[in-house]
Amino acid sequence: MEFQNVTATAKANVYFDGKVISHTIITADGARKTLGVILPGSYHFGTEAAELMEIVGGACEHVIDGTDASISIAEGGSFNVPANSGFTITVEGEPCHYVCSFL
Amino acid sequence: MEFQNVTATAKANVYFDGKVISHTIITADGARKTLGVILPGSYHFGTEAAELMEIVGGACEHVIDGTDASISIAEGGSFNVPANSGFTITVEGEPCHYVCSFL
Repeated sequence: MEFQNVTATAKANVYFDGKVISHTIITADGARKTLGVILPGSYHFGTEAAELMEIVGGACEHVIDGTDASISIAEGGSFNVPANSGFTITVEGEPCHYVCSFL
Repeated sequence: MEFQNVTATAKANVYFDGKVISHTIITADGARKTLGVILPGSYHFGTEAAELMEIVGGACEHVIDGTDASISIAEGGSFNVPANSGFTITVEGEPCHYVCSFL
């Protein structure tokens, strides 16, 4: 997956001591996305805007805040996170590559 | 630092078990660059094309293959690596953010 005609920020976003790293792009229509990698482990992220998480490499499991279901997502899959909520994402084995879109 | 009108690849390059992670962009004139993060540690990279390494966050030390000098580079600095050579890069403390241009 590629994104054309974007503006890319050189400096990355580093979370959890570098276990989650992303670079920000702004698309031609002004939408903000982050291209990221999650190394094995389990991490909680809060949301302000709603997010679409697309898994473009590897796999993960995720639990949306306030729910009990742990849902597996493989490469090519995606999940939505409501605004002002959050999710716990768990990766085992290989790194998980994602595209996060802020909706 | 930002790059405009680029094509960004969603999936990252992951080296050294995720201690070094980069995303690739192609600029409007076809040049390939990687936007990366190096977590604390010491890593050796070989080169095929010559590379310009610009440090855009944090700091590092580097030794070019075949030389003895360990040279410190702070944010805003850069160094060149010859083609078909390599370098050892060492980061302490905070992550080092870089832009690598293939020349």
